[in-house]
Amino acid sequence: MSPLNPLDPLHPFKTLKVVGRFVRRQVKRSGSAPGTLVHTGEKKMEATRIRFLDYDDEALREEEVPDLSTVLPLRDSATVSWINFDGLHDLDLIGSVGEHFGLHPLVLEDLVHVGQRPKEEEYEGYDYVVLPMLTWDEEGGMVRDEQLSLILGPRWILTFQERVGDVFEPVRERLRAAKGRIRSRGTDYLAYALMDAVVDRYFEVLERVGDRTEELELEVLDDPTPDSMAKLHHLKRELVVLRRSVWPVRDVLNGLLRAESAMIQDETRVFLRDVYDHTVQIIETVEALRDVVSGAIDLYLSNVSNRTNEVMKVLTIMASIFIPLTFMAGIYGMNFTHMPELAVPWAYPALWVAMLLVAGSMVAWFRRKGWL
Amino acid sequence: MSPLNPLDPLHPFKTLKVVGRFVRRQVKRSGSAPGTLVHTGEKKMEATRIRFLDYDDEALREEEVPDLSTVLPLRDSATVSWINFDGLHDLDLIGSVGEHFGLHPLVLEDLVHVGQRPKEEEYEGYDYVVLPMLTWDEEGGMVRDEQLSLILGPRWILTFQERVGDVFEPVRERLRAAKGRIRSRGTDYLAYALMDAVVDRYFEVLERVGDRTEELELEVLDDPTPDSMAKLHHLKRELVVLRRSVWPVRDVLNGLLRAESAMIQDETRVFLRDVYDHTVQIIETVEALRDVVSGAIDLYLSNVSNRTNEVMKVLTIMASIFIPLTFMAGIYGMNFTHMPELAVPWAYPALWVAMLLVAGSMVAWFRRKGWL
Amino acid sequence: MSPLNPLDPLHPFKTLKVVGRFVRRQVKRSGSAPGTLVHTGEKKMEATRIRFLDYDDEALREEEVPDLSTVLPLRDSATVSWINFDGLHDLDLIGSVGEHFGLHPLVLEDLVHVGQRPKEEEYEGYDYVVLPMLTWDEEGGMVRDEQLSLILGPRWILTFQERVGDVFEPVRERLRAAKGRIRSRGTDYLAYALMDAVVDRYFEVLERVGDRTEELELEVLDDPTPDSMAKLHHLKRELVVLRRSVWPVRDVLNGLLRAESAMIQDETRVFLRDVYDHTVQIIETVEALRDVVSGAIDLYLSNVSNRTNEVMKVLTIMASIFIPLTFMAGIYGMNFTHMPELAVPWAYPALWVAMLLVAGSMVAWFRRKGWL
Amino acid sequence: MSPLNPLDPLHPFKTLKVVGRFVRRQVKRSGSAPGTLVHTGEKKMEATRIRFLDYDDEALREEEVPDLSTVLPLRDSATVSWINFDGLHDLDLIGSVGEHFGLHPLVLEDLVHVGQRPKEEEYEGYDYVVLPMLTWDEEGGMVRDEQLSLILGPRWILTFQERVGDVFEPVRERLRAAKGRIRSRGTDYLAYALMDAVVDRYFEVLERVGDRTEELELEVLDDPTPDSMAKLHHLKRELVVLRRSVWPVRDVLNGLLRAESAMIQDETRVFLRDVYDHTVQIIETVEALRDVVSGAIDLYLSNVSNRTNEVMKVLTIMASIFIPLTFMAGIYGMNFTHMPELAVPWAYPALWVAMLLVAGSMVAWFRRKGWL
Amino acid sequence: MSPLNPLDPLHPFKTLKVVGRFVRRQVKRSGSAPGTLVHTGEKKMEATRIRFLDYDDEALREEEVPDLSTVLPLRDSATVSWINFDGLHDLDLIGSVGEHFGLHPLVLEDLVHVGQRPKEEEYEGYDYVVLPMLTWDEEGGMVRDEQLSLILGPRWILTFQERVGDVFEPVRERLRAAKGRIRSRGTDYLAYALMDAVVDRYFEVLERVGDRTEELELEVLDDPTPDSMAKLHHLKRELVVLRRSVWPVRDVLNGLLRAESAMIQDETRVFLRDVYDHTVQIIETVEALRDVVSGAIDLYLSNVSNRTNEVMKVLTIMASIFIPLTFMAGIYGMNFTHMPELAVPWAYPALWVAMLLVAGSMVAWFRRKGWL
Repeated sequence: MSPLNPLDPLHPFKTLKVVGRFVRRQVKRSGSAPGTLVHTGEKKMEATRIRFLDYDDEALREEEVPDLSTVLPLRDSATVSWINFDGLHDLDLIGSVGEHFGLHPLVLEDLVHVGQRPKEEEYEGYDYVVLPMLTWDEEGGMVRDEQLSLILGPRWILTFQERVGDVFEPVRERLRAAKGRIRSRGTDYLAYALMDAVVDRYFEVLERVGDRTEELELEVLDDPTPDSMAKLHHLKRELVVLRRSVWPVRDVLNGLLRAESAMIQDETRVFLRDVYDHTVQIIETVEALRDVVSGAIDLYLSNVSNRTNEVMKVLTIMASIFIPLTFMAGIYGMNFTHMPELAVPWAYPALWVAMLLVAGSMVAWFRRKGWL
Repeated sequence: MSPLNPLDPLHPFKTLKVVGRFVRRQVKRSGSAPGTLVHTGEKKMEATRIRFLDYDDEALREEEVPDLSTVLPLRDSATVSWINFDGLHDLDLIGSVGEHFGLHPLVLEDLVHVGQRPKEEEYEGYDYVVLPMLTWDEEGGMVRDEQLSLILGPRWILTFQERVGDVFEPVRERLRAAKGRIRSRGTDYLAYALMDAVVDRYFEVLERVGDRTEELELEVLDDPTPDSMAKLHHLKRELVVLRRSVWPVRDVLNGLLRAESAMIQDETRVFLRDVYDHTVQIIETVEALRDVVSGAIDLYLSNVSNRTNEVMKVLTIMASIFIPLTFMAGIYGMNFTHMPELAVPWAYPALWVAMLLVAGSMVAWFRRKGWL
Repeated sequence: MSPLNPLDPLHPFKTLKVVGRFVRRQVKRSGSAPGTLVHTGEKKMEATRIRFLDYDDEALREEEVPDLSTVLPLRDSATVSWINFDGLHDLDLIGSVGEHFGLHPLVLEDLVHVGQRPKEEEYEGYDYVVLPMLTWDEEGGMVRDEQLSLILGPRWILTFQERVGDVFEPVRERLRAAKGRIRSRGTDYLAYALMDAVVDRYFEVLERVGDRTEELELEVLDDPTPDSMAKLHHLKRELVVLRRSVWPVRDVLNGLLRAESAMIQDETRVFLRDVYDHTVQIIETVEALRDVVSGAIDLYLSNVSNRTNEVMKVLTIMASIFIPLTFMAGIYGMNFTHMPELAVPWAYPALWVAMLLVAGSMVAWFRRKGWL
Repeated sequence: MSPLNPLDPLHPFKTLKVVGRFVRRQVKRSGSAPGTLVHTGEKKMEATRIRFLDYDDEALREEEVPDLSTVLPLRDSATVSWINFDGLHDLDLIGSVGEHFGLHPLVLEDLVHVGQRPKEEEYEGYDYVVLPMLTWDEEGGMVRDEQLSLILGPRWILTFQERVGDVFEPVRERLRAAKGRIRSRGTDYLAYALMDAVVDRYFEVLERVGDRTEELELEVLDDPTPDSMAKLHHLKRELVVLRRSVWPVRDVLNGLLRAESAMIQDETRVFLRDVYDHTVQIIETVEALRDVVSGAIDLYLSNVSNRTNEVMKVLTIMASIFIPLTFMAGIYGMNFTHMPELAVPWAYPALWVAMLLVAGSMVAWFRRKGWL
Repeated sequence: MSPLNPLDPLHPFKTLKVVGRFVRRQVKRSGSAPGTLVHTGEKKMEATRIRFLDYDDEALREEEVPDLSTVLPLRDSATVSWINFDGLHDLDLIGSVGEHFGLHPLVLEDLVHVGQRPKEEEYEGYDYVVLPMLTWDEEGGMVRDEQLSLILGPRWILTFQERVGDVFEPVRERLRAAKGRIRSRGTDYLAYALMDAVVDRYFEVLERVGDRTEELELEVLDDPTPDSMAKLHHLKRELVVLRRSVWPVRDVLNGLLRAESAMIQDETRVFLRDVYDHTVQIIETVEALRDVVSGAIDLYLSNVSNRTNEVMKVLTIMASIFIPLTFMAGIYGMNFTHMPELAVPWAYPALWVAMLLVAGSMVAWFRRKGWL
């Protein structure tokens, strides 16, 4: 099996992603009370990494802190505070955050119980948004997802990521540089900027998937092998997964756009509409890629049929020319006492002529049929 | 036929589930007045098992009782009372319950006439919910369903199951342990907890179906046999059945979420929304699995074509090399008196050279075509 | 062609039902004024059979009458009157009924112009409902439909059937026996009971179609013949027809449920919702059966490919083993004067050894490829 | 190519109708101002044929006139006036009509720019309806369409047809005969009658398409040829075209039904609903026919596979029986000096016995496999 | 690979358009602040070309200007001013325009960040419309798109094109000639005229795509080659792209029709409805073409199967006739000492007779099966 195929039992990402992490974990935690914090992600990191940015038009403070003592008071500051948590395994820490910021137990559960369906929920005093962060795993030839939770309060934003990542780095850059309108606007604009950064990442994934599609299309056109079909099937599966990840993101953004939420101001809506348009474009592209991959599968199948047809033609031509000739030779290989032709001097050359005539007429007939 | 195939006439679950129990039973009871109690399920159990839990913040009483005398008065207690019935064949008993709790005749009929489509109906004084309890039958390789009826009154909940099961055991545990908020909340929260336990069970079924899909995908990639197609077809059928069972559950939960019903308080709605999200995720996964199984069927078909192609190539190569050689040997096996070549001393080795040239050029040609 | 196939030109039901009776009849009557009574059904019966039931809580009168003189006065009786007409060819009689009960000309036209799409229309003073009565024609292996018209007035119901049938017999039984709540309720409840009886009949058809599907699935798995495909195609067509008949019934019932019509009381709606649920379940089952039949067609096609593959393998193995051997025998059948091998005493057994080696290595190679 | 195939370059209707007249003409007129009258239809007729009917309950005047002088004053008569124009190439004439009746420039443009999508538009003082008139071209085996424009004013109706046709003849007959309610009703009822006549014509087309489908289904079942597939493809294309023509007609009628237009009275709406029901039935039948044709294509493909399978079986049986026998004969045709068997007297009959045994066991094996 | 295939690595338009320019560019600009002007199109032109038309009923001024000094004051003129910009790379210039006309930063970003999804957005004081300008690239056999931005203000319209094009030339002609109502109407009518010109261009693309479809259909019917399938796949991909471009245009026009925008007057809406109808017709035609191309793919595949079937028949017939005969000849080529037949004088002619009988009966059998 090719290294591209994640179904290889030795492949690091062999989990069947169609069923996905959420289902498998839901089975494990099954039966616990709602709101019970059970982190279902990986537990590789030693400590949760806490970083915050606190800013207004004029000043910006950025820090990485070891514990919550510095960040909890930010809740009540008049400046915009964005606290980012990388790593979800420290349930006590997350519990403390939840208590301090008044988060609903279900929100806390969803935070740590990763693999949620993208969603947007309004609670008293804050909005809760779950989005997938997608990346393309070049080695496995597959899409990987990480859960991003974003909690949008009046003057603060909390973001929770599964792993240390850099998807928000461009936003931090803009905040530091005080570029654009980002510093002078409120939390809702920051939330928009963060979601925009996440959705922008989808375009990267889409580009890679598109490249892979193009690659396979060329392979099918130029040099199809039985492996091509397995690769196409694998790509189709990735598109199924990608589609399922991105479709609900549209609903999330639509929900934010239409929300009566006091958290989001009217002037930010036009920006959210822009992100919404991007997700629509992503979805349409995924659908189009599905059509193209289906077409490539048809192309592959027709190719196999054509090759079988060609193989059959070679066999038929060879057999149809030589089988009658062999029969003719067989006739005069018989040992009958009374075969007058055998003694005729010109019989042997005459048979050759007859054989050439038979072979020639077969060739002519095949040529007329277009098989030669 | 493999033991996986439920179409085997000796298989214990040979009923074609696509048409399902409901249809077959509806045919039998056809013509009776609505509200006539006709139990259409199995009648294996000797007696209906009645268990109740009666609790408030402080106390909890749990009992298994032989008849209705203890449980009927619970209707008017101020505490939350949950009465569970395992077994539906004792129509007199169910009739008495119905009369005492003021249930509509159609509700009673639906209770015992199992195989209903999942639904949620508001009646005066109570809500009626039907959900399927799905389990994966490992032996038959198929999904089995049982009907769960839940009647949600102001201070009481009645649940009716077809068989003794343990799907509610985790909820009972939480009630006994007074864990979480479950003891301090009303009947609507208990109803949520019960429905959540049922939906959680779907994840288990989904995991098994996903494993089976993965298994078959690997089989098709590595070692497809004609049986693989029958297994894929069988799996696809199970997905059709699963989909039909789960789709309406979403509508049930949506109905409860939007209901104006006085039975459900606003603070419980956020929990119902969580269960709703789970059903959406289940449905999306079922749809994705359908896509994957369809893809695996395509893969299988392309595999069969490829193998035919390979078989044809072997035949064509063998025949194309040896048929001309046999013809050449046939020529010099002829018994003509006048065949000057026969007497030439170097004719025999020369023929061998010619034969090797012919065979070699055929091989070269096949190699250039990529068939060797 | 098998006796199951209705496409057989000698088959009694050879009409292509997809286009259906309505279209063909519409073509014939084309151009006549709307409201012109043209009966488009069969004209086998001699006379229209008129039966009525007139009842209230206490009394019930049931009679079969030769003409309208007895039934017309029932319009103004305070009791519930149900008048049933079997046979639609007596246009004068139907015209008289229409005039007396104040029916719209279009209603009268639709009554006799059978093959209508199921529909529900509210008129001043009455509701008009058209439903198909479906039966399974075992001999033709197909679904047959008959048009049932139901006119629901304030204290009377008129029903019109194409032929004498017994679909309403269970309702009559219940009326006679004064079983259930049927006698104490109004015309709307009677209308519900009649429609319920019609929809119950669909379950029977569905069961038969399901059995046929199961039968064909088993046939395809166990012993597929070229005929199987024709049978599957025929079944698929029946499902297309069935689906088209049943889909609009759902809309009819939904229309009645939501109707502001004064004809239907609130307490009857809960019963109508029950019938509605049944039609939804029927539709979902038909859709699932379509999926299963499509799957069986795929299974059949893969089966044909597999068999071709197997046939090819046999040919390839036989040819690949014996063609080289025949060539080797051909070599030593040549008549060259100078073939030193021919005189070597051990040459013949040596050739046998060589032949066995060649054959053995071919067999080993085929075995390694898994073809043997 | 068969005469049925419109793709034949010599076929009179070779235009690819999927793209259709409208697109091709739109390309030609591209760039002209809206409202510019450019007739895009055929210009075969010498003069536009103008016919009018002017009637009320009591009197009816019917005339064919050479110019507009007689018909323009009808606009202001109190009677219902229906003016029909056959032929659209006389742009001056149509311009004059437009000016006199106060038609919007876009209406005039759409009138002559034939191939419009069916639509219904309300203007100040009149409604504008475009419907296709479909006919079945038996010779070309295809659906042809003509554009019918209907302008419904307060006391007048204008109809514009591309060619002289007789689709309205039954309506004229009814008007002349004063049959039914047509004479006593207003213009809206007349408009209904005209649209009903047009939609009735669709049933005829549908019947023919249905007959053709039945014919091809029988052909595929009984005697499929490579041509059958081309015919099925052609029929499928016609259904694509038919579907695209009829779908919007439903919207047109729905629009008229829901319109707030003062032009249509409530008592006419019930008749329009009837036509609406007919279009729904037509659409459903077209969809069902598409399903049937798709099924017939599957049937055809499975048939081709089956035939290949059968051909292969014959070859495999012949080759598997005779190739080993030929090899055996080849052995004893060799010229080794030392072949002791050759001198054994009973060797020859023994070989025959061996050959019969080999052939017999092959036959038995094939019979057991069910290939014989 | 044929010159038609854009997948050829040397082909000028090898970019996989399904993923498209927007995605690839979005990846590059990823991380910049919204409203940052990054032109993502080609940069071939030296300078942006600025042209304006300023007119009312009486006068018209048309000029091409080198910089903004002349055009900026047009914002406040009472006449209708249409300023067209060809080329989007001069970001300073576009920034100045944006500032002067009060455009939102996101509008400016979308203007230069080409490849947007078609959209219509209302801003304070102006409407922003993005439409694709589609052209058919004959050489590449593919659809190309260019982004057109249209900003509709109270007395001015700005249009931005990627390249110098002539799609608006007909509109300019009409303005210069003062033809039709265009000069006497406001900016909204001009906007309609411009959008109409763009949509009219789609018809041209559609015509070409339709011609290509017809061409390929004929090729598949008459002389299918393995290349035909690649061409059909390529065409299908173009239809996927075309569909994705045109679908949202309908929503754009629908949005403008329903908009409460003060920019569009009621009397212009009827014209917009006309353009809307055209886009609906285009979409329906694209869908129909997709159906036809899918049908042609089926036709092609069935054709390949038929040809394989025919090849197999030839092989089977040849082999079945000559293999038994060769065997018969082989028998009498054996060298047994005791073969009494060999000495019989009439044995040789008798064998010929037997051979002819065998061959004749095979031929007769094949003829009866219809294979000859």
